[in-house]
Amino acid sequence: MNSSFIALLTDFGTEDGYVAAMKGRILGLNPGAQLIDISHEIQTYNIRQAAFCLNTCYYYFPEKTIFVTVIDPGVGTKREGIVIQTSQHYFVGPNNGVFSFVYQREGYRAFQIQMQEFEDVSPTFHGRDVFAPMAAWLAEGKSLQRYLKPIRKLESFLKQPQQLSEKEFGLEVLHIDHFGNIILNWHQNDFPEKRGVFAPMVTLRNQKFSHLAATFGDVPAGELVLTWDSSGYLQIAQNKGCAADTLGCTVGDEVKLSL
Amino acid sequence: MNSSFIALLTDFGTEDGYVAAMKGRILGLNPGAQLIDISHEIQTYNIRQAAFCLNTCYYYFPEKTIFVTVIDPGVGTKREGIVIQTSQHYFVGPNNGVFSFVYQREGYRAFQIQMQEFEDVSPTFHGRDVFAPMAAWLAEGKSLQRYLKPIRKLESFLKQPQQLSEKEFGLEVLHIDHFGNIILNWHQNDFPEKRGVFAPMVTLRNQKFSHLAATFGDVPAGELVLTWDSSGYLQIAQNKGCAADTLGCTVGDEVKLSL
Amino acid sequence: MNSSFIALLTDFGTEDGYVAAMKGRILGLNPGAQLIDISHEIQTYNIRQAAFCLNTCYYYFPEKTIFVTVIDPGVGTKREGIVIQTSQHYFVGPNNGVFSFVYQREGYRAFQIQMQEFEDVSPTFHGRDVFAPMAAWLAEGKSLQRYLKPIRKLESFLKQPQQLSEKEFGLEVLHIDHFGNIILNWHQNDFPEKRGVFAPMVTLRNQKFSHLAATFGDVPAGELVLTWDSSGYLQIAQNKGCAADTLGCTVGDEVKLSL
Repeated sequence: MNSSFIALLTDFGTEDGYVAAMKGRILGLNPGAQLIDISHEIQTYNIRQAAFCLNTCYYYFPEKTIFVTVIDPGVGTKREGIVIQTSQHYFVGPNNGVFSFVYQREGYRAFQIQMQEFEDVSPTFHGRDVFAPMAAWLAEGKSLQRYLKPIRKLESFLKQPQQLSEKEFGLEVLHIDHFGNIILNWHQNDFPEKRGVFAPMVTLRNQKFSHLAATFGDVPAGELVLTWDSSGYLQIAQNKGCAADTLGCTVGDEVKLSL
Repeated sequence: MNSSFIALLTDFGTEDGYVAAMKGRILGLNPGAQLIDISHEIQTYNIRQAAFCLNTCYYYFPEKTIFVTVIDPGVGTKREGIVIQTSQHYFVGPNNGVFSFVYQREGYRAFQIQMQEFEDVSPTFHGRDVFAPMAAWLAEGKSLQRYLKPIRKLESFLKQPQQLSEKEFGLEVLHIDHFGNIILNWHQNDFPEKRGVFAPMVTLRNQKFSHLAATFGDVPAGELVLTWDSSGYLQIAQNKGCAADTLGCTVGDEVKLSL
Repeated sequence: MNSSFIALLTDFGTEDGYVAAMKGRILGLNPGAQLIDISHEIQTYNIRQAAFCLNTCYYYFPEKTIFVTVIDPGVGTKREGIVIQTSQHYFVGPNNGVFSFVYQREGYRAFQIQMQEFEDVSPTFHGRDVFAPMAAWLAEGKSLQRYLKPIRKLESFLKQPQQLSEKEFGLEVLHIDHFGNIILNWHQNDFPEKRGVFAPMVTLRNQKFSHLAATFGDVPAGELVLTWDSSGYLQIAQNKGCAADTLGCTVGDEVKLSL
């Protein structure tokens, strides 16, 4: 049997059996599925962190990979389950914003999962009882018309940079990564006309940064510096340090960019 | 070569190479084995936590999956290594209670691993030197008569609910999960006659809970509530909170259930 | 398509998408690659820890397994990328000492990766843009002459035991593992003539240890004891405890061994 890759992203941690229950369920339905762990260490209920995590990796996966993303504080309530189909991939999970970057970057078709078509669904574990079977079936190419209806209203939390004046933009801290890099909501592809002559001055917590380096290693250990992150976002990094701790900043903090 | 799934559950953490040594050993003996990580983040030596973790996931895995479970504070001493065979699965690990839920729920045959048949066994790492090869060989269907003898005495730590009066039961906290849900040793399948008309009053640390909801999302954020967990156990949960922290409770705490 | 195993070892953590981006990139180039996670929980930039982790596991993996090891504080600077080929395996990563144990234990050929042959390389993420493709291509047996040139100078941090007198050696703490075992840079294979009659006295932080047991379980709970670790290094362990915490010691601490 030919089957696609199924990539798993959750906030379940791994000290419980919840991730494994999803894996077992998928393999029980589709033993040819090839499972890939993206992460199970997303902070509990942190939809924004999961969305950014997915944003930095999905692009590289083979055609037809299915991303099952279960950060789901609203499980069992009226929030919908959805499937997003792009030209390359499928995304399966709750309609709570976790696929915000996918809508922004890709053409797509969106479907609502018809929960009433599933049997024996625990109201606290749709990951195992709804999303896992959807992924297993998608991976083997089963027809899923019965389980899917088109949906229009998709949740998103993304903020675009706010143009404050000709040369000033209001940004925010989009993400802080494992190394403490502070990633801003300014992607080089979104402003192609500014890309060639990009001379930024970034203000965060009353500190100003204007040195745009190629990599953190270009400055002495401990020094803070602007770089493009590996996905194309502007970031404040610290060579051999943790910029977020040094600056005491968190996701959502306001940032000013002057060009 | 056709090979079964081998699912790995340990307390090794992943900052060392111990888990990878087991993976390498299995693949070195049986390159067709398909490895699945259940968890390596079980608390050091916490047999109860590992047993519960296994309990919530093994059921879903395909037929012939082999579960290698190495939480093994007694490694190298006289504790036995065992293989449990049920109608669907194999379980390989130390005889220290880590398979307690399996004996309780499944029909099984139990075997003692004949340690003396193995060569070059490190007294501190049976996971790599005994359990990994057993799993690799089971997965390829090798005859293992030489390595296995029937065993009778299996360790278990499970406590059944104590009936205190016609309508009162003494329970205990069986498990606290990643989200802080407090899971009790009352499974809905164990008391089928009480299932239809289940109106519980749970007392824990002098607090009483009687609202049985379908899911945590049914109550306001921060509120504590009774629900069935996704495996069928009664639990105290907190919507968007950590019930165990809020109540300051730990595994083994006494709980009273009045019906 | 026939493809080798690719084993991944990083300090990326898994709360970001960096590991998954590497996995996606490898599978995008070589969908037949079989990925194995060694660890992504190496402490940030801790080259020594990663080297030891690799040292305890690579030996067991099947022939032609490719180890991609990305602990890379110097990414984007002049540090080289390398490929080490031994009789059994390939190792891909930065030339910063992370393969120190491999050079010490194996015959090998070493190559410098020709970075200029790669396109669209992020200066902060060679794991995804250089090492992942190298591994994907090695796994499918592609000719890589264009990307590789012989290299001579390989970084290493390993210290050999210093002979202080006829019966005294200056050692250091090589590694502290997940269980708190204190592993010393004395491997039983390095001193075969001393192996049969090994009666050690180890001095660390003014405490002396001379009881060499087969396993920690041979002494009462809480007691400190010398044992051979499962890779053949001398270690100080504590039965059901954390020796490193109890002794307050860290990697690099000086140790005296008297025989």
